[in-house]
Amino acid sequence: MKLGDGVEQAIHSVLVLAGLSDTGALSAAALAEFHGVSTSYLLKHLQALAGAGILQSVPGPKGGYRLSRDPDKITLLDIVLAVEGSEPAFRCAEIRKRGPSPLAAHFFKSPCAVNAAMLKAEQAYRAELRKVTIADLGKPKDPALGRAIAQRVCAFLDLNERNRSQAS
Amino acid sequence: MKLGDGVEQAIHSVLVLAGLSDTGALSAAALAEFHGVSTSYLLKHLQALAGAGILQSVPGPKGGYRLSRDPDKITLLDIVLAVEGSEPAFRCAEIRKRGPSPLAAHFFKSPCAVNAAMLKAEQAYRAELRKVTIADLGKPKDPALGRAIAQRVCAFLDLNERNRSQAS
Repeated sequence: MKLGDGVEQAIHSVLVLAGLSDTGALSAAALAEFHGVSTSYLLKHLQALAGAGILQSVPGPKGGYRLSRDPDKITLLDIVLAVEGSEPAFRCAEIRKRGPSPLAAHFFKSPCAVNAAMLKAEQAYRAELRKVTIADLGKPKDPALGRAIAQRVCAFLDLNERNRSQAS
Repeated sequence: MKLGDGVEQAIHSVLVLAGLSDTGALSAAALAEFHGVSTSYLLKHLQALAGAGILQSVPGPKGGYRLSRDPDKITLLDIVLAVEGSEPAFRCAEIRKRGPSPLAAHFFKSPCAVNAAMLKAEQAYRAELRKVTIADLGKPKDPALGRAIAQRVCAFLDLNERNRSQAS
C-alpha cells in the first residue's frame, strides 16, 4: 500500500496557506519554491484540493490559492481523499465469482467477508485521519518549534502573499 | 491509496490452502484456475507469502504450496504486508527540510507532526487487520454459505490436491 508523494506536499501546502490573511493568496510557484518541489506536479494537487472545496482558486495575474474554510474545518482525511481519490484502497474484484465452479449467484447478495474485513480496517484508518485538523497540526507542542515555523512561514508570506493591496 | 490486486488473490488462495490435509499441496496453476486469474501473476504473490513464512513451498513435480502454520495464526495483516511490503503507506520525504529557508537542523530530531499523524492512522489500520485471521474468514456466519464454500473447495481439492499418497 502506498500513498503518492502528492499527499505530503498537499498537507504542507495547506498548512502554509493557513497563515495567509483572509484576502491573501499564494501562487502554485511560490508554494512549490517554499517546499522545494516541482511546480507542475504540485499544481495538479492544488487543483485537486480546489476541486474538493478545500482551497479556493483566485484567478488573474495576482491570483493563486487560499483556504476555502477555516483550518479547524479541514481534516487530514479531506486532503488525502482529495489527492488520492475516495475509492477504498482494497478494491474487491469478486474473484469468488470466477473459476470453473463459482458459488451459486444468490450467495453474492452479501459482501465477501474478505472485502468486509478489509473495508472495516480502512474505516479505522479514515476515522483516525478525520480526527486531525490543519489547525491541530499548526500548533506544535514544542513552543520553540512553533516560533521557528511561524517565523519561517511569515517571512515567506511577507515576500510572496498576493492581493495585499485589496486586504488593506 | 491503493492496494494491488495481488492482496485479494493472496487472501483467497490462503483460504483455499487452509482446506488441505497436513501433507497436501496445491500447485500455483491449480490455485490460479480456481480463482480464474493469471498463474504467473499469482505465482509472484505465492512466492512472497512463502518468503514471509506464511506458506511452505513444496518442491518437485508433485509440489506446490501449503500453509506453514495454522489458519488461526495467519492474520490479514500478515498477508497484506507479505504482498505489499512492510513500508508505511505514507512515506515522509521531509519536505520541511527543503526550500529556500528550511528550519534549523536541531528541530528535525523530532518527527514531523504530519508524518506522526499519518503513521498513527496507519497503525489503526494495521491493528484492525491484525484482529482478523484466516480461521475467522473460513467460518461464514451464514451456514448455507459455509456449506456451499466447503463443497466448492472440497470438490476442487479432491481433483487437485497433491502428495495424497504420502498422506495416506
